[in-house]
Amino acid sequence: MISDKKHDTNSFTDDEKSGLYKAIFSRRDIRSQFISKEIPDEVLFRILNAAHHAPSVGFSQPWSFILIKNHETRLKVKESFVKEREKSIKMINNESRKDEYIKLKLEGIIESSINICVTYDPTRFGPFVLGRTSIPETGIYSVCCAIQNLWLAARTEGLGLGWVSIVNNQELKKILAIPEYVNPVAYLCLGYVNEFPEKPDLESSGWLKRMSLNEVTYFEKWNKKINNENWSGIDELIKKTN
Amino acid sequence: MISDKKHDTNSFTDDEKSGLYKAIFSRRDIRSQFISKEIPDEVLFRILNAAHHAPSVGFSQPWSFILIKNHETRLKVKESFVKEREKSIKMINNESRKDEYIKLKLEGIIESSINICVTYDPTRFGPFVLGRTSIPETGIYSVCCAIQNLWLAARTEGLGLGWVSIVNNQELKKILAIPEYVNPVAYLCLGYVNEFPEKPDLESSGWLKRMSLNEVTYFEKWNKKINNENWSGIDELIKKTN
Repeated sequence: MISDKKHDTNSFTDDEKSGLYKAIFSRRDIRSQFISKEIPDEVLFRILNAAHHAPSVGFSQPWSFILIKNHETRLKVKESFVKEREKSIKMINNESRKDEYIKLKLEGIIESSINICVTYDPTRFGPFVLGRTSIPETGIYSVCCAIQNLWLAARTEGLGLGWVSIVNNQELKKILAIPEYVNPVAYLCLGYVNEFPEKPDLESSGWLKRMSLNEVTYFEKWNKKINNENWSGIDELIKKTN
Repeated sequence: MISDKKHDTNSFTDDEKSGLYKAIFSRRDIRSQFISKEIPDEVLFRILNAAHHAPSVGFSQPWSFILIKNHETRLKVKESFVKEREKSIKMINNESRKDEYIKLKLEGIIESSINICVTYDPTRFGPFVLGRTSIPETGIYSVCCAIQNLWLAARTEGLGLGWVSIVNNQELKKILAIPEYVNPVAYLCLGYVNEFPEKPDLESSGWLKRMSLNEVTYFEKWNKKINNENWSGIDELIKKTN
């Protein structure tokens, strides 16, 4: 299960296929559900290896994973979160919206088993990185693909993951001794959970609704909706996905 | 298999779990292997729905998917690729490296069944997007997670996907009538393939080597290597992943 060498067949069984879809549809951003149960080392490194097998522009593999167990370090990151959260509250003009926001739990930095900072090193295998010449941001995009691999692998192992985006990257760099030329991309909290909620917290709480697939899909060019005239049977198909 | 409503259990069977890992380890960036076999609509929309169920900052779901079948449109995108490739060749100083680069096939725009442009709309559900206040780039990161979902779902369906990053985004916007405020994030080629190569093309051709997991993993802070002193048994674990 660990190495790509073991997968030489191209076809997936129904169970294998539904494993992937199950991971995708039941993955959640976890903030409140962490329990105090240690992650076995082999599980942790299996999901890190899944992340490391993400696609990367020019095969540049520009990611690094900083594993953080230290309590003092986490407290510092939590402080940064608290300050950034305060700032963001001030940006909300609508008072009832502000009250809703304040009630939400948005991170599990201290309660999770381990924190992982995922970084992007633009100099790796550079300066010429194949495929990164027209769109330099593709380097960071590779790191995001690695994060999604990590998230899905964690889900199949019964591990919850929360992405803390309310944090100051300059402070994070100082706390973790990350050099100036490297960018933190994600600060993740990982651990076993008492449950995976059926829906995302922000959907359950009514913060926002899930869009339907046909609202985000166009045909041939921007804003040209897919409908039964340009794609026969599309209404039925879309209905199945909602 | 299509909706999240059907997945109420938290545990994965061994087959389901290995389905996810198999997709991750056998996923490839496909450029040369496309065959002319149509993608059934239900398969296409199943993988689009997998993309649509990616994590997104503040549940903002900022992605759109433009499905492109039109041959003229593809020719225009291919022209942009050709021009950008020429530019990138000029950036390579080392002559033998340049020759290697020229030999590589880097896209399957015309040969694939369908092209998909994935975009990022920073205004969706905005201007205040929960969790995007400290790091505005997290909006684009969400779109990248959607792309990775799409890629993995495609893999389990036996569909190859290639990400064309050598393209001019301003030209892409003109070709697809994408408004100024929306950013193209990825231009993807999707279709059935005659094979999924065992290794990435750039690894097989000797362009770059795959790094080992311990080269990209640190403990507690940047550059602090994981070793048997700070993590017992780590050498054995890392060996298993290589």
